[in-house]
Amino acid sequence: MCGIFAYLNHCVPKTRREIFETLVKGLQRLEYRGYDSAGVAVDGPKNGLKDEKNICIIKKRGKVKSLDEELYKKDQMKLDEEIETHFGIAHTRWATHGEPNAVNSHPHRSDKNNEFVVIHNGIITNYKELKKYLILKGYEFESETDTEVIPKLIKYIYDNRESEDVSFSMLVERVIQQLEGAFALAFKSSHFPGEAVVTRRGSPLLIGVRSEYELSTEHIPIQYNTAPHHPVLHDEAVKNHSFPEGQGATEPQGHLKDEVQMKNQRNRSDSSCGLHSVGDGKAVEYFFASDASAIIEHTNKVIYLEDDDIAAVAEGKLFLYRMSRQAGEEPVRAIQTLQMELQQIMKGNYQAFMQKEIFEQPESIFNTMRGRICFENNTVMLGGLKDHLKEIKRCRRLILIGCGTSFHAGVATRQILEELTELPVMVELASDFLDRITPVFRDDVCFFISQSGETADTLMALRYCKERGALTVGVTNTVGSSISRETDCGVHINAGPEIGVASTKAYTSQFVALVMFGLMMSEDRISLQKRRLEIINGLRMLPELIKKVLELDSKIKSIADELYQQRSLLVMGRGFHYATCLEGALKIKEITYMHSEGILAGELKHGPLALVDNDMPVIMVMVRDGCYTKCHNALQQVTARQGRPIVLCCQDDPDVKKSAYKTIELPQTVDCLQGILSVIPLQLMSFHLAVLRGYDVDYPRNLAKSVTVE
Amino acid sequence: MCGIFAYLNHCVPKTRREIFETLVKGLQRLEYRGYDSAGVAVDGPKNGLKDEKNICIIKKRGKVKSLDEELYKKDQMKLDEEIETHFGIAHTRWATHGEPNAVNSHPHRSDKNNEFVVIHNGIITNYKELKKYLILKGYEFESETDTEVIPKLIKYIYDNRESEDVSFSMLVERVIQQLEGAFALAFKSSHFPGEAVVTRRGSPLLIGVRSEYELSTEHIPIQYNTAPHHPVLHDEAVKNHSFPEGQGATEPQGHLKDEVQMKNQRNRSDSSCGLHSVGDGKAVEYFFASDASAIIEHTNKVIYLEDDDIAAVAEGKLFLYRMSRQAGEEPVRAIQTLQMELQQIMKGNYQAFMQKEIFEQPESIFNTMRGRICFENNTVMLGGLKDHLKEIKRCRRLILIGCGTSFHAGVATRQILEELTELPVMVELASDFLDRITPVFRDDVCFFISQSGETADTLMALRYCKERGALTVGVTNTVGSSISRETDCGVHINAGPEIGVASTKAYTSQFVALVMFGLMMSEDRISLQKRRLEIINGLRMLPELIKKVLELDSKIKSIADELYQQRSLLVMGRGFHYATCLEGALKIKEITYMHSEGILAGELKHGPLALVDNDMPVIMVMVRDGCYTKCHNALQQVTARQGRPIVLCCQDDPDVKKSAYKTIELPQTVDCLQGILSVIPLQLMSFHLAVLRGYDVDYPRNLAKSVTVE
Repeated sequence: MCGIFAYLNHCVPKTRREIFETLVKGLQRLEYRGYDSAGVAVDGPKNGLKDEKNICIIKKRGKVKSLDEELYKKDQMKLDEEIETHFGIAHTRWATHGEPNAVNSHPHRSDKNNEFVVIHNGIITNYKELKKYLILKGYEFESETDTEVIPKLIKYIYDNRESEDVSFSMLVERVIQQLEGAFALAFKSSHFPGEAVVTRRGSPLLIGVRSEYELSTEHIPIQYNTAPHHPVLHDEAVKNHSFPEGQGATEPQGHLKDEVQMKNQRNRSDSSCGLHSVGDGKAVEYFFASDASAIIEHTNKVIYLEDDDIAAVAEGKLFLYRMSRQAGEEPVRAIQTLQMELQQIMKGNYQAFMQKEIFEQPESIFNTMRGRICFENNTVMLGGLKDHLKEIKRCRRLILIGCGTSFHAGVATRQILEELTELPVMVELASDFLDRITPVFRDDVCFFISQSGETADTLMALRYCKERGALTVGVTNTVGSSISRETDCGVHINAGPEIGVASTKAYTSQFVALVMFGLMMSEDRISLQKRRLEIINGLRMLPELIKKVLELDSKIKSIADELYQQRSLLVMGRGFHYATCLEGALKIKEITYMHSEGILAGELKHGPLALVDNDMPVIMVMVRDGCYTKCHNALQQVTARQGRPIVLCCQDDPDVKKSAYKTIELPQTVDCLQGILSVIPLQLMSFHLAVLRGYDVDYPRNLAKSVTVE
Repeated sequence: MCGIFAYLNHCVPKTRREIFETLVKGLQRLEYRGYDSAGVAVDGPKNGLKDEKNICIIKKRGKVKSLDEELYKKDQMKLDEEIETHFGIAHTRWATHGEPNAVNSHPHRSDKNNEFVVIHNGIITNYKELKKYLILKGYEFESETDTEVIPKLIKYIYDNRESEDVSFSMLVERVIQQLEGAFALAFKSSHFPGEAVVTRRGSPLLIGVRSEYELSTEHIPIQYNTAPHHPVLHDEAVKNHSFPEGQGATEPQGHLKDEVQMKNQRNRSDSSCGLHSVGDGKAVEYFFASDASAIIEHTNKVIYLEDDDIAAVAEGKLFLYRMSRQAGEEPVRAIQTLQMELQQIMKGNYQAFMQKEIFEQPESIFNTMRGRICFENNTVMLGGLKDHLKEIKRCRRLILIGCGTSFHAGVATRQILEELTELPVMVELASDFLDRITPVFRDDVCFFISQSGETADTLMALRYCKERGALTVGVTNTVGSSISRETDCGVHINAGPEIGVASTKAYTSQFVALVMFGLMMSEDRISLQKRRLEIINGLRMLPELIKKVLELDSKIKSIADELYQQRSLLVMGRGFHYATCLEGALKIKEITYMHSEGILAGELKHGPLALVDNDMPVIMVMVRDGCYTKCHNALQQVTARQGRPIVLCCQDDPDVKKSAYKTIELPQTVDCLQGILSVIPLQLMSFHLAVLRGYDVDYPRNLAKSVTVE
């Protein structure tokens, strides 16, 4: 959902070409977050007449590649001019408001002179009111986006500033007091050359630091501001337009004296004071990005921002600000070391990231289990849950919450969790859960499943459940993500970076992580020991069996050859494989644009069977488990209507072979793990279908990874 | 799911033509249960050479009309011959095993001489083992059906009988001991002319009685048999083939003396004894049918059979048998009076039953509320729940269980039930609930929602929950149905008979019934009084508002004119209207065979948005409620991708009108009732789409009402 990348070099000379290259490379790493248009803003060549720096914005509809080509066409950009200190911002977009075109792309600007330019990831929900107000004040809008109110607003505040002595970060602080919704923002201004201000609420943002010099600190202190909120906007016009209060805004606190001191200090600190900062004014580079994959090739030293943090770089020094300190809040942000390897986010010999990630599953699954299951003594220990296990065991109900694929991981493991924990387990789509204002109680344990750990709806559901006193558990693939930070405890699935927009290895690792949780919960139950052993043994064999399934690739390709021109596709199954059907159909929908739907085989007779005839392609999952006979009934019903089902079944099943049009034979494992093996052929199928239909697998239209807006 | 109809006239002379007419009329009333083929079996004209009656079977692929035409073609049937006592059976099929053709149609027969003929509704799950065994014994099979084992098996038992003195009902008793699965069966045999035996397990069956004479009793006693079970099959061959034990079989109980007496009595009773019977040998007619709609035009006196009841008519007298008496079992079956009117099951001036039922909704909704809501003092009282209300209020969780449309009624009311009861509410698809072996506890209250009250999966879920000690509540539209009989308490939705296979008025009545339950639960809560009043007031206005929505019919027709050639269709919404989307999409799927899918608007960005382009028709529901702003985001996303959404919205909503391709404007009511108004345009849309596509609205392919098999 939009990718933000920005680069500041301080006392590190770079040609404009090198700056472009850095910005474009950053966008390419983030491109899976959105790719319908992209843009950059940099300082243009010095204008002989004026001293002021002029900011150039270059935007282009389409993928980052189109922008890249555009950049070098502009002769007047003086590509080889060296700039010692510079701040450049870049953005790849996933359209939410206004269709994808150059005008709607980022960066957005305050005015024709580009005094302030902004990139934004998220949604501003109160943009209509703001826009109305600003238009009244004479500001002209050029796009249909929600974002454009932000540069207009900062210019309005700047134009109406009470003193000349206002810092860039202070302007941004006043802006975000007016914003509702979710955002990660980076600001650049010709009034503050060489300075950067970034901030976030809801959407992710982290900062990488690279310097030849040792960093002066491992912890950056936060400076708290207690200034009265949005003083500039406190006039009659605002009241008349019922300006909503900014979420981050709090009433003035503390004594006036402190306040004045603080203000003075801040005004200094942005410009010169070396206290509470990183960088010390020596040669240093900063990288601002929506996620770590865009940063890792430059540095592994990063700082994760929290909601409403404002980070500002001035004269090469990084400062952090917040409005006011909450009780219990740490007044510092640590500089952390990324554990990621660059090679993990490269495609290697595969056609697409998605394909690579499908084939990585024997390893990613193994990594999920590494150090957590001891196969010698059959124990399972998830370190992140250890301290809360007693509390979890006392709960009355488990609620698994996620969106899309992560929701399906909950559906897939619901039954085995019910069996192993003997608790009621509810699985909820995060958006529906919030819409319904679902009752949550203090004796509930809520799991928040999200690959990125930033999914907006899931994150909001987390905050909702926390408020109601439930114990919150995160299941994410991203260390340092909002969900992993805000939950009481959690499991990191360790699947490695997932770049393909259509999630594959994260699903199977979430699946295994949740099964391991079930095993951990049942360790002390004598009656469940046999079942636990069977599952642990199944987990041990799983990577090998996944390899066997992956060997079916060419067979699956040959079936895809037959199917790829179809418009619709039904995927049917039940029991442990209902989730496989939902997830397989979602993969196909996402990257092939075929109308595929996962159907519970038990519901067939209650409607969906009407769709079946000899035209409609049907994929069925029926393996030897408790639902086998019932699945046979469904198979009979489909063939009785001239359907020609392609059946995912166990090896050597003559009964199925007789009735099926084609079969894909899977190795067999424990019933509750079989869903991991049955989903992989559908992942492969969706990949081949998309390639055959001529689509870009890693960049499905209209979609983006890591949905950080509601 | 298959309709059974059988007619026995005793001492009431009828021509063969009249018998045919009665049988065909019966089938036509049941045709909504299945209509891919039909058949009858009657006594043929006396063969001059043989004394024995010969049974004629006439079967035909297609709807009952085709069979009807076929019957009168047969000159040799002597249509005008009068028969004083006769038993005829008839069947309309919905194929489960074997495709629809004449051979696979019912009645099925024991052999080329038609010694035993059988009609069956249900599924025999162990038919493969039985078939293997019978083939080994030399019986030849002609069809692919599961049913055919039944006539073969009864002949096998008859051929191997130990004495001549075996009654027809006893043969049937031995047959059903061998059967697993679900069935309602009617048997006719040339060895027992003028006699009828019917039985059921899982599938519904009732018996109508018509006589000029007053019935001698209002209660028919049950005769219990304690004979050793399946003596005939207890030989080596059976053991070698690991013959499964019949579900109904129990080990012999009681003393030998009792047993012999009982046997003797039974042998007599089938043939002559007047004790424990209805009919007394005087002129009497019996009608056996899968449901009451086939009986009401003949008589309103009916007997509902329970699982494993065997009913036999011999010499005009009706006897009831069971294997053994369970603790607490009533040893009688009452003769009940049907409350149905014939006119209720006629189409009137409408093109189709479904259309009639859509337009009946102002009345059916009113009937659901009649006598239950007192609008003067704003109280709600569901008589069927009154005695259990205290217990329900003490529960820890509500679980709503259903299939298809009934499941959607649960989804639709989940949020308001959560709000009014402040309890966690789970909504479960019955088949998935069973597949998952979901944990259910004694402090759970489980609702079973089923129009027919016979839905197999829902019924099995009911038994599953009962075993685990949960309080069970039925929500059905059929008095006397299995679910209404087996639940602890319940609500009859009073929507009137629903004939259209695609459920419409039952959905809205289920919706209202569940809302009324919520109102009843919150009567004592001061903080909820305002909300309750608002809802009660909304309910009062509802019939009028529905009439307003129905006035949109021609507008909806004009939109259908534009859409009907499409192959796919997405229906999107969230919050209270998620269920509307699921239900609307299901209607469209069921009767138009377009691939429609209900999509939670909040999940759009997690996959389904990839399907959206200017080709894919999209219907969105967005009315002024808590999700309105979020829905606007979804609308923006769709239009940003060139989608052309048709939006169901509130009257006078210029913001929606601006972005939407077309709008359908609905009157506004309380948020939690709005779903009743928003689903009706989709019901109408599906109707018009189906008519435009040239399909028979009341008889969608592959589907049937009242799904009595798993």
